[in-house]
Amino acid sequence: MSVTEPAGFVASGVWCGVKASPSALDLALVATEDGQPVPAAAVFTANKACAAPVQVSRAHLAASGGRAAAVVLNSGNANAATGADGNSHAEETCALVASGLGCAAEEVLVCSTGLIGIPLPIDAIKSGIGPLVGARAADRDSAATAARAMMTTDTVLKETVIAGGGFTVGGMAKGAAMLAPHMATMLAVLTTDATASPADLHHALTMAVDSSFNQITVDGSMSTNDTVIVLASGRAATADGDALAGPLTEACSQLAAAMVADAEGATKLIEVRVTGAASADEARRAARRVAEAQLVKCSFFGHDPYWGRVVSELGSAGVEFELDRVSVAYGGIVVCQGGVAVAHDHQAVTHHLAQRNVEVTADLGVGHAAATILTADLTPSYIDENMTTS
Amino acid sequence: MSVTEPAGFVASGVWCGVKASPSALDLALVATEDGQPVPAAAVFTANKACAAPVQVSRAHLAASGGRAAAVVLNSGNANAATGADGNSHAEETCALVASGLGCAAEEVLVCSTGLIGIPLPIDAIKSGIGPLVGARAADRDSAATAARAMMTTDTVLKETVIAGGGFTVGGMAKGAAMLAPHMATMLAVLTTDATASPADLHHALTMAVDSSFNQITVDGSMSTNDTVIVLASGRAATADGDALAGPLTEACSQLAAAMVADAEGATKLIEVRVTGAASADEARRAARRVAEAQLVKCSFFGHDPYWGRVVSELGSAGVEFELDRVSVAYGGIVVCQGGVAVAHDHQAVTHHLAQRNVEVTADLGVGHAAATILTADLTPSYIDENMTTS
Repeated sequence: MSVTEPAGFVASGVWCGVKASPSALDLALVATEDGQPVPAAAVFTANKACAAPVQVSRAHLAASGGRAAAVVLNSGNANAATGADGNSHAEETCALVASGLGCAAEEVLVCSTGLIGIPLPIDAIKSGIGPLVGARAADRDSAATAARAMMTTDTVLKETVIAGGGFTVGGMAKGAAMLAPHMATMLAVLTTDATASPADLHHALTMAVDSSFNQITVDGSMSTNDTVIVLASGRAATADGDALAGPLTEACSQLAAAMVADAEGATKLIEVRVTGAASADEARRAARRVAEAQLVKCSFFGHDPYWGRVVSELGSAGVEFELDRVSVAYGGIVVCQGGVAVAHDHQAVTHHLAQRNVEVTADLGVGHAAATILTADLTPSYIDENMTTS
Repeated sequence: MSVTEPAGFVASGVWCGVKASPSALDLALVATEDGQPVPAAAVFTANKACAAPVQVSRAHLAASGGRAAAVVLNSGNANAATGADGNSHAEETCALVASGLGCAAEEVLVCSTGLIGIPLPIDAIKSGIGPLVGARAADRDSAATAARAMMTTDTVLKETVIAGGGFTVGGMAKGAAMLAPHMATMLAVLTTDATASPADLHHALTMAVDSSFNQITVDGSMSTNDTVIVLASGRAATADGDALAGPLTEACSQLAAAMVADAEGATKLIEVRVTGAASADEARRAARRVAEAQLVKCSFFGHDPYWGRVVSELGSAGVEFELDRVSVAYGGIVVCQGGVAVAHDHQAVTHHLAQRNVEVTADLGVGHAAATILTADLTPSYIDENMTTS
């Protein structure tokens, strides 16, 4: 169940030849049922080397006044660092979808994911859009096919449906490493049948992304293509930004957790929680520093409760920190208190670290703010998957 | 040839039992020949979780007015996150060395490297200091023994001697990953027979560290114990800060390069050079972002010229950046120009990337500033060495 669950949306997925194998899917569509534009909002990567589809989608959303009829997505090529041709190709893709649906080109958004710096095989895309538009339907299988067509190194479908107050939110996403996966990019498309203005949608989406996709990290990189889009069909209850934010956040959080759990080479889903920080920003910065530290991630892979590395990262995170106030716990079992080792149940810690879902909590003891970041461990398989692109 | 090469210094190394194996060395000394204090300077980690020996050495140098007679170093235990006991143990270590040499305790500096969060086995240290002080000598073997006694996962001795104008600089270092190795810490001790004031020494050392140890990175972490110390015996020519800076920088650069080359699990020494940046600070920030990116380091391990990852990191480095001005070259062979792929000699690039010493240069095309960072690749052996501490 995913983007076609809210009333008013159709989806489809086909293979068009961007990926070599005909048994793969590489082109996806999420559109309104009647092909007419509805309120839409998007959050894009902050990477200054942002890809052509990011530039084009941003421009389209501005030109249409926050309305869109469809999102077209390809996997297998990021259309990033592809120059003026890349932008033309992204525009051409939108125009072809628009002509198939009967809307304006500015009402189509586009996303790409795959290798950076390789010209988009536009002929393949062009050949695929007719079948893609023709295959669109409102059933669950079509939504699943669309979700599959956006995958790169993902190993599982990432779909969600959340019930709001009188409306529904559906979502699909890809991202096998966050934020710069094997072949670049996390993408997510959300739909809702709520009746909402573009401004309220944008407000809600920003809040939702901030406490979901922005709180996960696999390798600390920020891709050229990251995009999260929401479309609102207006078939169900009216919702303002705050009413939308809850279900949208829940949907985004589920997709975000699914991404980390499916991160390249990962054997663990790790929750890094920092409490007792001087401010929310410092809590988040400290948690991110720990979550992105290679040595910490190696320890988790090895089931090693080496809290010294956690403390060392906290001390260099650029936040208020006093070693003798710090405590660290694995799965709730305190192993460091007042900045030094304390007696604890070794076997219980070992047992916790052997699980697939593990958690480390660090209390800084200098304030009352807290933050949580989800991450994965660093494994030989991650290196194996990322050492070559061929 | 190392710290005993400049006139006026002795060194020694012994096994005292911090490390389990009697065939290992774990306690080192560098001291003035007569045990009397000389001008000294030091640069310490900026990590707020800094270790007891860092706190004690900083206090001693302040109390002595920038003079020291000796540096005592142990490997096998970082004496970090060890609370008040850790500080007492570091003080006790200095006092014992001082009593052996006939100087004041404040004239002894102390360094530790090894695991964080484990009480320092002070009885082992105490038993070792007599033999350590007794073994001190001015020959090369003694210097090499001291350099060996400070090693943790290092696989090669890191020593250097640089001739200055009328004086000599010698140095030894350890650090198998920078900046937070397997068992924490990079340490370096430098000696010179130059005649110099503590202020001039500090000025020169700060400059030297800034363009050597601060321009290498293995995993982006900053250890709890990082320390660089220089002692000046005053047996040779007088030198001001600027005259000292050149040879000191050269000595530090050699030791820094040796550290990266010997980084845990590394198969390559990678020079990341950013040119055409808007400012020196931005050049350095951009180079560091590329050098610390897990995905870039994986590419180097796999000999894969995937410049898309380099461009993506530059775009998210927080520096002035315009994609269509960027070019990227491997070993001088341009693979990306104007932000897009350009025709090039693939075989020559492949050949370059197969070497042990490789270089990637990114020109941002927005200014005239440049910076270079040395790093290593990310390999399964790095994970293997760091996944457990036992």
